[in-house]
Amino acid sequence: MPHLPSLRAEELRSYHAQIRQRYDAFARRGVKLNLTRGKPSAQQLDLSNDLLALPGKGDFMAGAVDTRNYGELQGLPELRALLAPVFGVTPDRLILGDNASLSLMHDAVVYSLLKGACDSERPWSKESRIAFLCPVPGYDRHFSICQELGIEMIMVPLLSTGPDMDAVEKLVAADPQIKGMWCVPKYSNPSGAVYSNETIERIAKMKTAARDFRVFWDNAYAVHHLTSERIEIANIDEACARNGNGNRAFIFGSTSKVTFAGAGVGCFAGSKDNVAWYLKRMEKRTIGGDKVNQLRHLRLLGNTDGIAKLMERHREIMAPKFMKVLETFTEHLGNTGVAQWTEPKGGYFITLDVLEGTAKQVVKLAKEAGVELTPAGSTHPGGNDPQDRTIRIAPSFPPASEVELAAEGVVLSVLLAASEKLLQK
Amino acid sequence: MPHLPSLRAEELRSYHAQIRQRYDAFARRGVKLNLTRGKPSAQQLDLSNDLLALPGKGDFMAGAVDTRNYGELQGLPELRALLAPVFGVTPDRLILGDNASLSLMHDAVVYSLLKGACDSERPWSKESRIAFLCPVPGYDRHFSICQELGIEMIMVPLLSTGPDMDAVEKLVAADPQIKGMWCVPKYSNPSGAVYSNETIERIAKMKTAARDFRVFWDNAYAVHHLTSERIEIANIDEACARNGNGNRAFIFGSTSKVTFAGAGVGCFAGSKDNVAWYLKRMEKRTIGGDKVNQLRHLRLLGNTDGIAKLMERHREIMAPKFMKVLETFTEHLGNTGVAQWTEPKGGYFITLDVLEGTAKQVVKLAKEAGVELTPAGSTHPGGNDPQDRTIRIAPSFPPASEVELAAEGVVLSVLLAASEKLLQK
Repeated sequence: MPHLPSLRAEELRSYHAQIRQRYDAFARRGVKLNLTRGKPSAQQLDLSNDLLALPGKGDFMAGAVDTRNYGELQGLPELRALLAPVFGVTPDRLILGDNASLSLMHDAVVYSLLKGACDSERPWSKESRIAFLCPVPGYDRHFSICQELGIEMIMVPLLSTGPDMDAVEKLVAADPQIKGMWCVPKYSNPSGAVYSNETIERIAKMKTAARDFRVFWDNAYAVHHLTSERIEIANIDEACARNGNGNRAFIFGSTSKVTFAGAGVGCFAGSKDNVAWYLKRMEKRTIGGDKVNQLRHLRLLGNTDGIAKLMERHREIMAPKFMKVLETFTEHLGNTGVAQWTEPKGGYFITLDVLEGTAKQVVKLAKEAGVELTPAGSTHPGGNDPQDRTIRIAPSFPPASEVELAAEGVVLSVLLAASEKLLQK
Repeated sequence: MPHLPSLRAEELRSYHAQIRQRYDAFARRGVKLNLTRGKPSAQQLDLSNDLLALPGKGDFMAGAVDTRNYGELQGLPELRALLAPVFGVTPDRLILGDNASLSLMHDAVVYSLLKGACDSERPWSKESRIAFLCPVPGYDRHFSICQELGIEMIMVPLLSTGPDMDAVEKLVAADPQIKGMWCVPKYSNPSGAVYSNETIERIAKMKTAARDFRVFWDNAYAVHHLTSERIEIANIDEACARNGNGNRAFIFGSTSKVTFAGAGVGCFAGSKDNVAWYLKRMEKRTIGGDKVNQLRHLRLLGNTDGIAKLMERHREIMAPKFMKVLETFTEHLGNTGVAQWTEPKGGYFITLDVLEGTAKQVVKLAKEAGVELTPAGSTHPGGNDPQDRTIRIAPSFPPASEVELAAEGVVLSVLLAASEKLLQK
């Protein structure tokens, strides 16, 4: 692999012509591949197919609770007991919501806007302005909630150890209108970054000008390992409590990428006061969640070991796809000087950073060659990546064979866009 | 039955002593009965037990949609096609939500507050004040949403033909801050009132000072008949469109009291613009509802006839319970001059109006005798019935044998409270 930025003009022209040829040849194959969505594959969903006939005829009681009827606002105690340890809280501090944690995050923001958090002076909507810190690259659906609800987004860099805490600490100490920060602390979307113990301690400890500051702790990939390492991160709830900021963390997660992506169980967890506050709002909205689905999940997962075994089978399907992408990137982009990428140990995404100013063009070229990628910029607030550099790669959904081919299309698009760009200099 | 208000003091004292004795005897039986919640009974839930093993192993595709995965924000087209006629709209104007229509009502209010409706000048939360009309007696959970979100509630009388339209028309024409009205148009909670065609036409046609006025049309009991009459009401969506107020109605309903009360499918319906507006908000909150549960319902219900047949079986269980209550009321309260009640042809409730100023005391006495009733006042905004007169009776949940006994306890409490009250005069 030549180091593109070092090539002389003539060499670059010849390299570009050659890549153009390879790209055109790829495009002529007329493939239709998709690396856009962090969706589990059909093969992964098959792992939980028992859910389709669960809880099973005659099975609807959970202790004294008839799961078919109204009630149990907080969710079935048995399933709470099973899932609470995943999020580092006791079962009384876990709420089971609808089928998606995204809804719970959205509602936590909405409730804070309309009513204020449990320690707010007033509803956030009564403030002149509200801002959230957004580590980038990050998850577009977090940013969409802010955009929809008129919350200003302040970017901070996401390092391999978590958000740049020097920047975060300075910002939250100075500005009382910064009320929140989005965090995917483990196998982050999309870089795969894992927050270090030090980062988590600093988040829990930092002085915030807003006394009702909240960390939106989206632990979406708590058990979604891609290696045998099974990384555990520090317990944010415990750290906040220890530092006298017990109400700081709103914790979220779900079984969406454990069982069925559209039909799982979402979770909210937090301090006693946060949970009481959330339930108080939630009881205006619903008489209770879908307890039959909660029972269904209890029957399928059984116990902590059941979750671990299921996730191990997910890994067997997912890991080879990630390997294919990483191998292809290494083989064709290694030492080219126009791309770097993350090697996540869990989660659903790889972040590919291409030559500055070419991410949009890469996505366009890939699409024209039959490989759909997440729109460039979607990793940043407002869909605007100021360096036009970051691309989110989602290898989970297509079959392994297609992933390799798709990665080839990406590689050719990266090299073509980069050589075009360098030629313009 | 003596006519209590006509009794002379001496007669009244002797009557009171005799009722006191009967009440005490009842209380000594130590029953524990509950007429509080509009919950289906276990026997009714059993009718849908097939859901517990549906859709069944290997059954997860709905057309080209893998129900197990993300997507299909609006809900499965096949289930929308089945449910849309129930709410008088075309399938493209129906949205399938989570497990409860209450959530959809809550969210419609929240979205209007934070973003404004599709034809609002500004978000409702930016208004100096927002008010909703609340026909009384009405549904406490409607009122709770208003109370939670700081929406002023203006009571209007609910007649047997629907809201007192003379009062409604005057109010909405004069006050641009009145943005909504709660309606349960069919077999109303709790009186069982059915809106007449004339009422519905007047609601659709009336001039409102607020151009973004919304009728929250909670058609919770659309197919929940208690007699063979199977009342059909006028189509609010059509009426609004015909009168040039196409966006006026937000229509809600669910399968909660068709299949499982805690695990059904909620529906939002409305004009094209209302549906587009709702989806635009909803897509920030979720990637889609629980499509496996939607498929499950599609498989259970099958077609329109399947719904009708299922509801017929519900009727067979429900109607005798309502009869028991009404017979007991007629036998013991008829012509006493201290009570009147509705005789609903559908839905889940009977409204019992007792001697003014005694509803709270009746509920207290009943409780002390072992019969739990919905708190007096819960049929009115803020839990405050100015006349302290209205009690909501929910006969659905207990077995038929207990319903009769519970009704006896209610009757004795009504007569005891009334005679006490009359003695004080």
